[in-house]
Amino acid sequence: MNFKDKLHTQVNASHSLLCVGLDPDMDKIPAHIKQKENSFFEFNKAIIDATHDLVCTYKPNSAFYEAEGEWGIRQLKMTCDYLKETYPQIPVLLDFKRGDIGNTNEKYAQFAFEYLQVDAVTVQPYQGKEALEAFFKRKDKGIFILCKTSNPGSNELQGLPVNGKLLYEIVAEKAVGEWNENGNCFLVVGATYPEELKKIRSIVGDMDILVPGVGKQGGDLKTILEIGLTIEKRGLIINMSRSILYASDKEDFAQKAREEAESVKTQISADS
Amino acid sequence: MNFKDKLHTQVNASHSLLCVGLDPDMDKIPAHIKQKENSFFEFNKAIIDATHDLVCTYKPNSAFYEAEGEWGIRQLKMTCDYLKETYPQIPVLLDFKRGDIGNTNEKYAQFAFEYLQVDAVTVQPYQGKEALEAFFKRKDKGIFILCKTSNPGSNELQGLPVNGKLLYEIVAEKAVGEWNENGNCFLVVGATYPEELKKIRSIVGDMDILVPGVGKQGGDLKTILEIGLTIEKRGLIINMSRSILYASDKEDFAQKAREEAESVKTQISADS
Repeated sequence: MNFKDKLHTQVNASHSLLCVGLDPDMDKIPAHIKQKENSFFEFNKAIIDATHDLVCTYKPNSAFYEAEGEWGIRQLKMTCDYLKETYPQIPVLLDFKRGDIGNTNEKYAQFAFEYLQVDAVTVQPYQGKEALEAFFKRKDKGIFILCKTSNPGSNELQGLPVNGKLLYEIVAEKAVGEWNENGNCFLVVGATYPEELKKIRSIVGDMDILVPGVGKQGGDLKTILEIGLTIEKRGLIINMSRSILYASDKEDFAQKAREEAESVKTQISADS
Repeated sequence: MNFKDKLHTQVNASHSLLCVGLDPDMDKIPAHIKQKENSFFEFNKAIIDATHDLVCTYKPNSAFYEAEGEWGIRQLKMTCDYLKETYPQIPVLLDFKRGDIGNTNEKYAQFAFEYLQVDAVTVQPYQGKEALEAFFKRKDKGIFILCKTSNPGSNELQGLPVNGKLLYEIVAEKAVGEWNENGNCFLVVGATYPEELKKIRSIVGDMDILVPGVGKQGGDLKTILEIGLTIEKRGLIINMSRSILYASDKEDFAQKAREEAESVKTQISADS
């Protein structure tokens, strides 16, 4: 099954558009977990076991693992292996925002799809379609292009005027057009930019859009759902990381994470 | 000593603008090396020992290590440690082309500057200055912004017209202007685009520019030197990877790599 079908199947099964970002942080994980040899994996495993029926996907961000070097990569691998073995129906999206020339992107694709065996990745658009072919040619994988990112300063380049449009609109047009020959192109749009999400939705039709930035970053869930959902009440993958992962820093962290995830899922259901 | 001073000191000491890209590839390293437990490190070590007096910097590309997972990251760490211990005067540039929101870029910076302890990195411009502050604030480190990349399709976005200029020219203006508050901003410009390099040189003055794409990718060294050098015959870091690393796939690979590096260095000296 390709990524798109796997995602939609899981959305229907879980009745959820919630994606939990697996971004473990040495400064934030509970003290009793931090002592363990594979603390990041143990933390993730507890979060996953507590939330697996509430999500449409999990999204580990590579940066949080790389920061801890070789050990961190082992934690990421263990996490991906655990998800694949225990919850094979849930797609895994590796958020690594890579972008290089074709020859080198092949190596990044090898990391994601052969080593970690994830279902989808995030990538940078700056080098263009030709460089990204190393990803696009993986027809069964999902390729999420950064379009309008959630950070406060993202307009600096993404909002530049190009031929009467804005740069992020050009990226959205490409992602739904010539970059999408294999039907495996998707977008990343920050929840902190609802007006831009509205424009992008009008450009890309019912394409699935990953939306980070709800929660700690300030994006408003209700607004995003009103603006971003398709007529079938689908088409968004709402990522939440810190507000779920660190709902508690005590022994009850997994239970508190579940409560937070349930609350978000209820809002999504109520609003759609 | 900050990165810029360390680079210029090494350029003057080596009389070289050559950067050797340390991009080990399981399909290309010699058979007798491939058998070893730490084959990538052993390969790099042999290349480094054979070329250290001919280069101004070494540039490992993270993708080639990540492709091999946890083991690959260990090889990268061993390589960076070896360079730091054995040739501390040679700056190490980690080519990882990262770009994310600020909170996450902090983690990528931790990977580069705390774990690997390199002197400089390459980054993506798409998320803007505010996101890149996690890198720029490392005043003693060099931050190389992708401006005009070497791949055949790089004009697709980088050549878009913005307010009477092209997108890559806007990036160059930012890199020499408001992004360079700490004087630690540099650029990446592909050798495959000499006309664009000429324009960029006119925008950024004597800023150091990393130039990949000479050799296998087709960039012409002589043209690049004529166009890209500053009046002090400086300002370029000419990267070569595959043509040096894989000059031979036999036991003499390190010697052949040295001969290739010497030949390039001679051309650089002859032309400048």
